[in-house]
Amino acid sequence: MSEYRGTEAVRVLHWGLGAMGGAMVRLVSRRSLLVSVGAIDSDPGKVGRDLGEVVGLSARTGVSVLSDPERALLHARPDVTLIATGSFVPEVWPQIRQAVEAGSNVICIAEEMAYPWAGHPDLAERMDELARAHGVTVLGTGINPGFVLDTLIVALTGVCQEVESIRAARINDLSPFGPTVMRTQGVGTTPEEFARGLETGTIVGHVGFPESMLLIARALGWDLDEVEENREPIISQTERETPHVKMRPGQVAGCRHTAVAKVGGRVVIELEHPQQIHPHLEGVETGDYIEIRGVPNISLAIKPEIPGGIGTVAIAVNMIEPVVRSGPGLKTMADMPVPRCLVKELAPV
Amino acid sequence: MSEYRGTEAVRVLHWGLGAMGGAMVRLVSRRSLLVSVGAIDSDPGKVGRDLGEVVGLSARTGVSVLSDPERALLHARPDVTLIATGSFVPEVWPQIRQAVEAGSNVICIAEEMAYPWAGHPDLAERMDELARAHGVTVLGTGINPGFVLDTLIVALTGVCQEVESIRAARINDLSPFGPTVMRTQGVGTTPEEFARGLETGTIVGHVGFPESMLLIARALGWDLDEVEENREPIISQTERETPHVKMRPGQVAGCRHTAVAKVGGRVVIELEHPQQIHPHLEGVETGDYIEIRGVPNISLAIKPEIPGGIGTVAIAVNMIEPVVRSGPGLKTMADMPVPRCLVKELAPV
Repeated sequence: MSEYRGTEAVRVLHWGLGAMGGAMVRLVSRRSLLVSVGAIDSDPGKVGRDLGEVVGLSARTGVSVLSDPERALLHARPDVTLIATGSFVPEVWPQIRQAVEAGSNVICIAEEMAYPWAGHPDLAERMDELARAHGVTVLGTGINPGFVLDTLIVALTGVCQEVESIRAARINDLSPFGPTVMRTQGVGTTPEEFARGLETGTIVGHVGFPESMLLIARALGWDLDEVEENREPIISQTERETPHVKMRPGQVAGCRHTAVAKVGGRVVIELEHPQQIHPHLEGVETGDYIEIRGVPNISLAIKPEIPGGIGTVAIAVNMIEPVVRSGPGLKTMADMPVPRCLVKELAPV
Repeated sequence: MSEYRGTEAVRVLHWGLGAMGGAMVRLVSRRSLLVSVGAIDSDPGKVGRDLGEVVGLSARTGVSVLSDPERALLHARPDVTLIATGSFVPEVWPQIRQAVEAGSNVICIAEEMAYPWAGHPDLAERMDELARAHGVTVLGTGINPGFVLDTLIVALTGVCQEVESIRAARINDLSPFGPTVMRTQGVGTTPEEFARGLETGTIVGHVGFPESMLLIARALGWDLDEVEENREPIISQTERETPHVKMRPGQVAGCRHTAVAKVGGRVVIELEHPQQIHPHLEGVETGDYIEIRGVPNISLAIKPEIPGGIGTVAIAVNMIEPVVRSGPGLKTMADMPVPRCLVKELAPV
């Protein structure tokens, strides 16, 4: 991959070539200031092939997908490694460590990485120390957590003199997603299966509420005393169907996942993220909604909701340039400059 | 004012104690991390009096309002000077220069300061050099320009893979404002008087469109080829009245000020800011609206609009902490971390 040496474009290594990671490769290929210099995936169907071919680009990239991270990092010498391999800090920590030790900045879309101190304070501390020791930045981001139910809320409080409480909801449509999402949200189960799935941990709902809440709380200087989460089945009144699931009335269309955070026993943040297939069939309008009670009150609606997959890929790639320019350490979106789509070129009409 | 020396609170000097500047003093008094250490105003009715008394605080502050900036800066030794004296760069430049030369960071709510390169590139360059030479930050901010029609738009593009064009409107109600605003927006004039006022420059509409557009364009890497502004009278169909103005049908209720920016002859940013009294009398719903065409499309509404005065005071004070921590130079809101209301304490319910 030495052909990329000497260019001024930011050198990007892609770790994980699933739906999100593959879309990031395609977006990077459209940005003149970025260049893909390496790719890591464990799927034998992808290893050894050209990255462009694997992710469906029209042209070859000259970059081979490798299964060996050490070799890939050594050859690619990336400025930034985009990690899109899992949702949880313990899964991605070894990958982050390896990339950082190779001298690479890291952007990771694992939901827990939006605020890794929430669930894994010890690993977060080690990550921060390691990043500082190697002079690189580690950032977790994504559409949610990472933007809609945290960074955007923080930004809106910027025009508030006082904030008393925050209430926000992300009401989306799971229909475009595949079988993994259907399973983790309990779509198509019976209410009994849903209850059992919650108990056994196969149904998880949304990953990221504690992360969003602590990100907000740190930015606003609040000391939360607890975060409580609740998951309930959304029972369908209608028949609903996607390519991956089909259900009758009485079955579960998705998971209504909510969370509250308190200070001194008073609820100060309420977040709601009901995720189901075809919510419009029962008159539910999708959107992102934020209500700030304070001085002034602010009531915001984005309708329809910002699409999750497109938005996650966008913000991960859009944060490359600020991450490269940032000081070292483990950062959150609230530590970074206002995000933006820096493309130098306009999109074609 | 030496009693404040040694405290860890950020030392704030207030330059200009009009409606905005006075409200900033009151907000600073409610923030435990900030302390007002000086005040400058030229109004003989304010000079020599206690700052708390002048701005309507219940307690005296021990800070006397001075008319002599040099003396005030020398005595107060502020970390940050909040300048709320005018709308235009040439008005505030001598004040900014004096504060910077005294070693103070500066936050200024002059509309043109949101992006001073727009109207005054030479002064902006001098300001940037001076700030760097003295190791301080100079930032222009406010609700608009500064947030609604620029920073918030930039932040939303952070979740876009492509941006094709931007359209946004701030539809507000001028009823709470005083005689100066009524005059500069042409409220209560006849259509003929309005046309004449535009010609002679007494009616100006909104100050800040070129600033908002260039702030967006710089953040997104666009090279605008022109910004065109247009001002039209909003002719009232109804009787409307505020404490400062009263009008009959056929008279002017306000100014519909719009602007477009082009790249390669194509309109890429359209901003609209119709300002009138009592818009609800003719069924106009106030709000802040942003439409991004791109991947994805984003459609945002904040209803009612974020109130201008409260929001400007809030964001000026909320930016104190990030400005103190920022590297030196002339900055825009897009260069700064995501804004937030950092209060350490919750507002009372």
